[in-house]
Amino acid sequence: MKIYVYGVYNDEVPYIKEWQQEHPEVTVETTTKLLNEESVDLSKGSNGVVVFQQEPYSDGTLKKLASNGITKMSLRNVGVDNINHELANKLGFQITNVPVYSPAAIAEFSVTQALNLLRRTKEFYLKLGKGDYNWAPHIAKEMNNQVVGIVGTGNIGSTAAKMFAGFGAKVIAYSRHKNPELEKIVEYVELEELYKRSTIISLYLPHVPATSKMLNEETFSMMKDGVLIINTARGPLIDENALIKALDSGRVGGAALDVLVGETKIFNQQIDEDQVDYPEFKNLLKRPNVLITPHIAFYTDQAVKNMVKMSLSANLDLITKGTSDKLVEF
Amino acid sequence: MKIYVYGVYNDEVPYIKEWQQEHPEVTVETTTKLLNEESVDLSKGSNGVVVFQQEPYSDGTLKKLASNGITKMSLRNVGVDNINHELANKLGFQITNVPVYSPAAIAEFSVTQALNLLRRTKEFYLKLGKGDYNWAPHIAKEMNNQVVGIVGTGNIGSTAAKMFAGFGAKVIAYSRHKNPELEKIVEYVELEELYKRSTIISLYLPHVPATSKMLNEETFSMMKDGVLIINTARGPLIDENALIKALDSGRVGGAALDVLVGETKIFNQQIDEDQVDYPEFKNLLKRPNVLITPHIAFYTDQAVKNMVKMSLSANLDLITKGTSDKLVEF
Repeated sequence: MKIYVYGVYNDEVPYIKEWQQEHPEVTVETTTKLLNEESVDLSKGSNGVVVFQQEPYSDGTLKKLASNGITKMSLRNVGVDNINHELANKLGFQITNVPVYSPAAIAEFSVTQALNLLRRTKEFYLKLGKGDYNWAPHIAKEMNNQVVGIVGTGNIGSTAAKMFAGFGAKVIAYSRHKNPELEKIVEYVELEELYKRSTIISLYLPHVPATSKMLNEETFSMMKDGVLIINTARGPLIDENALIKALDSGRVGGAALDVLVGETKIFNQQIDEDQVDYPEFKNLLKRPNVLITPHIAFYTDQAVKNMVKMSLSANLDLITKGTSDKLVEF
Repeated sequence: MKIYVYGVYNDEVPYIKEWQQEHPEVTVETTTKLLNEESVDLSKGSNGVVVFQQEPYSDGTLKKLASNGITKMSLRNVGVDNINHELANKLGFQITNVPVYSPAAIAEFSVTQALNLLRRTKEFYLKLGKGDYNWAPHIAKEMNNQVVGIVGTGNIGSTAAKMFAGFGAKVIAYSRHKNPELEKIVEYVELEELYKRSTIISLYLPHVPATSKMLNEETFSMMKDGVLIINTARGPLIDENALIKALDSGRVGGAALDVLVGETKIFNQQIDEDQVDYPEFKNLLKRPNVLITPHIAFYTDQAVKNMVKMSLSANLDLITKGTSDKLVEF
């Protein structure tokens, strides 16, 4: 029995080896190449493939895979938007994903960045670079004095809420589906009330039409002066031009953005700033009270381990049992 | 009744005004100047003085104050090392300090910096400056997978222990005096065991002969490879040359230092790196996995408020009641 793994990163290798040792009956072969029409024949003779990529799986690639007898495909990530579902169904594909690989990874990063904004660590970093070792006037605020508004209390938002509460912050939350376990430490409120009362607002929602640009001129205008905004969810939840205006006016006191509307133009590549055609990004990047990171919240050893081992196990289930609890329904 | 306040920072002004409004019977006068032989006569006619400075209160200054009839002195900080205790006693001084102004301020900062080391935020900051928006190979670790060793479980260490536990980290601690309330969430161990088991070690001890260079070649050699070291306590707790060797060998994976052995040469001033005669500092500063901050852990709005208002109230107690619960016994 053989599983072929495409697009392998260095930090995935130890976990592939670990899984292999736990499943000596399976042969695992790997390549750093992504799955496309050029690389598709590498997996010939395998029973299934494990993949992870942001670029589309072309129709030609899917057809070639199927003609090689491979219709068991397991994604190491969540999103299946880059697959032609209709064609995949017609060709008889069974596809799994890893819906939750580490809620703590993203929750912890959102808390880290909220603390960095309160502590003004980027400003201190800039000061120290100029030989300025004075502490004043960059006074910090304490987390235990904040009102943290959690928008969305799914897996990640609920995990973050507990961490913020661990600092003694007052935590309020909005969610369409309340998490009863969370009501011991969190006060659920309407979204407008959350905007009005919070000193820190952190987003944990997917990007769907209803959440697109939910932070905009109108909603910023409801917020407290100096509010801090954390987005480790999806870039399009924020109207970036409205955010820039709110930063200029002081309505927003700082922002930590791990995701951007136009991030595919920049993130996960080496790129010269001059060559970037994305004025909002350039404006935000140079501000001392805005922390930009290249979509790294998910990127922890624990998350990578789970992505690798869960996808391999799901692929093995498809091969040996013809199904998996991680099967994606198209 | 009049209290004179020396060495006032801008961010203290609002809290002095707030206290003044709460005590209309007292006149409060202020200066940005520190208390020394040149400025001592500014407070003539006052009933007491409130001070905050790192430089010594000279014998001449104390004598002049006493000859002006002022022997009620309240420090806005903790330390009284820079006062000639014998002389102060002889002159009939009563001195108060603010022993605890905000345990959360320092505890929160130590947790913030531990998260920054796990998340490698300085490395990402340096990468982004070079137009490198790749996430790999800078993979992060998660706090919930760490074993955090708290050295010293007084006010600050106990507060930090609860925060680390809020992330789901395993928290172990060493302290000469155990905090029974903490034993619900923390496992007390011997110091050597703490060194051996921790993946993060954070210091919360005063500097006394017994703690001087407690982290040294011998104790680093007991630790786990890649251990992270957090020091928001006192610089001399760490042998900085031993730390440099341990960073070179990989024994220590990263360090966050808010205090340094020779910090008075650099911190709280503007200084050109070329003019700094402190090779250990220069060596540490340039490392991507070492976070240096200029003794800012205490510097929050809540802490400043408490330092100002508690010291003014203590001074008022000395004047009106002849004693205070913050009286320092020499």
